[in-house]
Amino acid sequence: MSNFIQTLNDAWQRTNSLLCVGLDPEPSKFPGALAGRPEAIFDFCRTIVDATAPYASSFKPQIAYFAAHRAEDQLEQLIAHIHENHPGLPVILDAKRGDIGSTAEQYAREAFERYQADAVTVNPYMGFDSIEPYLEHEGKGVIVLCRTSNAGGSDLQFLETGGRPLYQVVAQLAAEKWNASGQLALVVGATFPKEIEVVRGIVGDMPLLIPGIGAQGGDVQATVNAGRTANGTGMLINSSRAIIYAGKDDDFAEAAAKVAMETRDRINAFR
Amino acid sequence: MSNFIQTLNDAWQRTNSLLCVGLDPEPSKFPGALAGRPEAIFDFCRTIVDATAPYASSFKPQIAYFAAHRAEDQLEQLIAHIHENHPGLPVILDAKRGDIGSTAEQYAREAFERYQADAVTVNPYMGFDSIEPYLEHEGKGVIVLCRTSNAGGSDLQFLETGGRPLYQVVAQLAAEKWNASGQLALVVGATFPKEIEVVRGIVGDMPLLIPGIGAQGGDVQATVNAGRTANGTGMLINSSRAIIYAGKDDDFAEAAAKVAMETRDRINAFR
Repeated sequence: MSNFIQTLNDAWQRTNSLLCVGLDPEPSKFPGALAGRPEAIFDFCRTIVDATAPYASSFKPQIAYFAAHRAEDQLEQLIAHIHENHPGLPVILDAKRGDIGSTAEQYAREAFERYQADAVTVNPYMGFDSIEPYLEHEGKGVIVLCRTSNAGGSDLQFLETGGRPLYQVVAQLAAEKWNASGQLALVVGATFPKEIEVVRGIVGDMPLLIPGIGAQGGDVQATVNAGRTANGTGMLINSSRAIIYAGKDDDFAEAAAKVAMETRDRINAFR
Repeated sequence: MSNFIQTLNDAWQRTNSLLCVGLDPEPSKFPGALAGRPEAIFDFCRTIVDATAPYASSFKPQIAYFAAHRAEDQLEQLIAHIHENHPGLPVILDAKRGDIGSTAEQYAREAFERYQADAVTVNPYMGFDSIEPYLEHEGKGVIVLCRTSNAGGSDLQFLETGGRPLYQVVAQLAAEKWNASGQLALVVGATFPKEIEVVRGIVGDMPLLIPGIGAQGGDVQATVNAGRTANGTGMLINSSRAIIYAGKDDDFAEAAAKVAMETRDRINAFR
């Protein structure tokens, strides 16, 4: 039985990288050479994965981009490709699911049995019993939204409750009540480094998935200073569009690899 | 361009029913006659839909049950079947999506273009900019989680903020800030009739999707008293398992129709 948290820690050490490459495939942005291919989404993502794997410690396909194009089968293929060709690099299915227990069981089967993901992102709005069914899949990771990188994230997450903003309550629930099995991690956006620091203070060494550098403009130095653990890891720093669309032509794989390497190195410069 | 809110109001009047039949297909619960059929999920759901349509004003397929079984194509077929054979009964895709704007655009395409749903359920934790992309699909309905029917719903939704529990803040944001286009509705669980009453007081005539009667045990009389609008409508009262698994054998369609009729009538007795 693979264990997400352990695999992640091993990957951080072995690869010397905290970079998580996000896979958000939009066919309208693909280079011309892929146009019209029946499995263009898989071909594009596989090429990006193989080119960036030397610089990454994890991959995060975003399921909406596959579902909008009826490409679930290509997502299955892609995750199988990563496991086969890049063993030891965990795959996070970014799905942000959230539903009552009986439905969450189905989503957990979707993420872990159908897609063979190592971890899945989930939404905490419906509470712990909407998260528990994922934890029953032993060793799998469950990454709970805490402080998201979008501007609207403040609408609810910044509301004060008991003298603290809601996202801090979520961090505390995750760290102190919901993580008996040790499978949890949290999403905290890089667009708010001070909030990463607060969350790190609440959750100890719990891994943080940090989107928002790259296209969303988060500051790498501030992010790393705020989020690293004592051994200089603890973060899955995600970049999607800035890497996968770095090149627009037939050189897109090389362009993605170059930006992935640079991003890894920028992160490592501040660890 | 169909308009969800208008279609729903018309359906309530024309059918004299507030019942929303939830479609949560689990092959392990299907009657033996369907076992082994390649499209058992579609066959089961279509049979339930045709049997219960005389007593319902809407249908709500839950996407997790299709996704866990690689049955997205059967979900497409099912929604097309409802539109073709039961025109005027809106279809709500229960997906509870929630993500940043660029990803929400993809989920909106999935719900409205791929599946041709009339409305979709969404999660408010990431704020208004995670909801806006759905509203750009003119006339489509967007049903925001407010107070969910599960026990764990209280973990966050009951936290006090500004002197009120969080779910009331969500209701107020939805009613006063987020609904300029008139496309919104809210999810409020039947397991909490007092909270339905509070939400109704905040949101005026906004439609409420109310899960939790039937298998989840919510009280029909208390629910209807709390949630009805001045003209005795305003609610999509959902029952899933209590209807679709009412019969276990070849009589499952008749059994579902009977429970659907009884449920409609129990609701109408208190309108």
